Amino acid sequence: AIAAAVAARFSPGPLAGKRVLLTAGPTREFLDPVRFISNPSTGKMGMALAQAARELGASVTVVLGPVGSVDRSGLEVVDVVTAEEMAREVLGRVAEADVFIATAAVSDWRPELRAAQKVKKGSVDGPETLRLVRTPDVLAEASRKVSGQTRRPVLVGFAAETERVLEHAREKLERKGLDVIVANDVTAPGAGFGTDTNRVTVLTRTGAPRELQGSKDAVARGILELLPVERRPSAG
Amino acid sequence: AIAAAVAARFSPGPLAGKRVLLTAGPTREFLDPVRFISNPSTGKMGMALAQAARELGASVTVVLGPVGSVDRSGLEVVDVVTAEEMAREVLGRVAEADVFIATAAVSDWRPELRAAQKVKKGSVDGPETLRLVRTPDVLAEASRKVSGQTRRPVLVGFAAETERVLEHAREKLERKGLDVIVANDVTAPGAGFGTDTNRVTVLTRTGAPRELQGSKDAVARGILELLPVERRPSAG
Repeated sequence: AIAAAVAARFSPGPLAGKRVLLTAGPTREFLDPVRFISNPSTGKMGMALAQAARELGASVTVVLGPVGSVDRSGLEVVDVVTAEEMAREVLGRVAEADVFIATAAVSDWRPELRAAQKVKKGSVDGPETLRLVRTPDVLAEASRKVSGQTRRPVLVGFAAETERVLEHAREKLERKGLDVIVANDVTAPGAGFGTDTNRVTVLTRTGAPRELQGSKDAVARGILELLPVERRPSAG
Repeated sequence: AIAAAVAARFSPGPLAGKRVLLTAGPTREFLDPVRFISNPSTGKMGMALAQAARELGASVTVVLGPVGSVDRSGLEVVDVVTAEEMAREVLGRVAEADVFIATAAVSDWRPELRAAQKVKKGSVDGPETLRLVRTPDVLAEASRKVSGQTRRPVLVGFAAETERVLEHAREKLERKGLDVIVANDVTAPGAGFGTDTNRVTVLTRTGAPRELQGSKDAVARGILELLPVERRPSAG
């Protein structure tokens, strides 16, 4: 890591001078002080992309949901817990970024109410219903925010799917106004949450889908090599 | 750890020959393949107790919910994900244990239905309701299971509370038929989820409450020293 840091400092690297903003990890949406809705994201793929971007010369900021210990060396890391916190931190930074890569597995819903005290088991009989409301769509809001800029960041999304993977990913690329989407079938062996390897398909607005597989580090480098790194003239 | 293992092997230790069964970590209750209800337990307090019991000479089995990397050396570890899996593994082992210590933060509710595929955001408009049903109460079921035994294991529970901590803990001790309960206020500074320190109150059926604080390792040793280690004549 020291050698990589020195290399990044003294050789320009293809991303030298670029500001990369990333989201990584899950979010947690609390029902009460001790219970939440979340997902199994460990942030590994996002942190692999962050470190790969840094090694290519970029200055990297990661807005990071709650994960175990990860390698933060050489990165600016902003820790958040909920989707709303993640949205706020991203929206305050995305306009200045050259590349925005949304790898976080943001909870789509949160409990409508968060109880101030732990709900006691005995206080509810039979089935309980939990009312859920939508959380901010961090990537779609970031895309909307920069769509009017003369030069806007390259926008990269991830689609973790369990069925009709490419179809869902292509739809998400269009709907959220992205330049690139990285699709993966989280149910495939050697892919998805908590694994050290990944197998993804990179889709752009034009051009054929490209498949990448291997360690998350190798897949991260492969994804960065496929990105257009100049800020885009706005479509709007 | 090697020195401790050697010491445990060649000197009897106060728990030599005792079988300690422990639960640790959170459980996850899935809504669909990628979303679950859980809590912030990292399993640290439970794993500290497991290692402390091993160092005192016990043979230790941990039924462990999903946590990051933990020190499993010298322990039998049974990995589980859901409350139902944890209940099954505990109920199959508790009758043979000399001590059962339930440190896991078991989810009290699970979604009534688990969707086979990831639920798409666009497929639901407005607030969504999630129907929750109760999960098995692992500790209460284990207590019931052994209550008819001539000699039953010493039963130790944990109460993670956010208010009226001792009152809630005392009520849980009685209701679940425990010998000992370890109460902690998870909202107190230096206590609770994810911290390396803890501050707890140990309550028994008789005798004054005892307070312990310090590193989770030190608190673990303190708790074990307060336990009656002979199997109990059944109250039933």
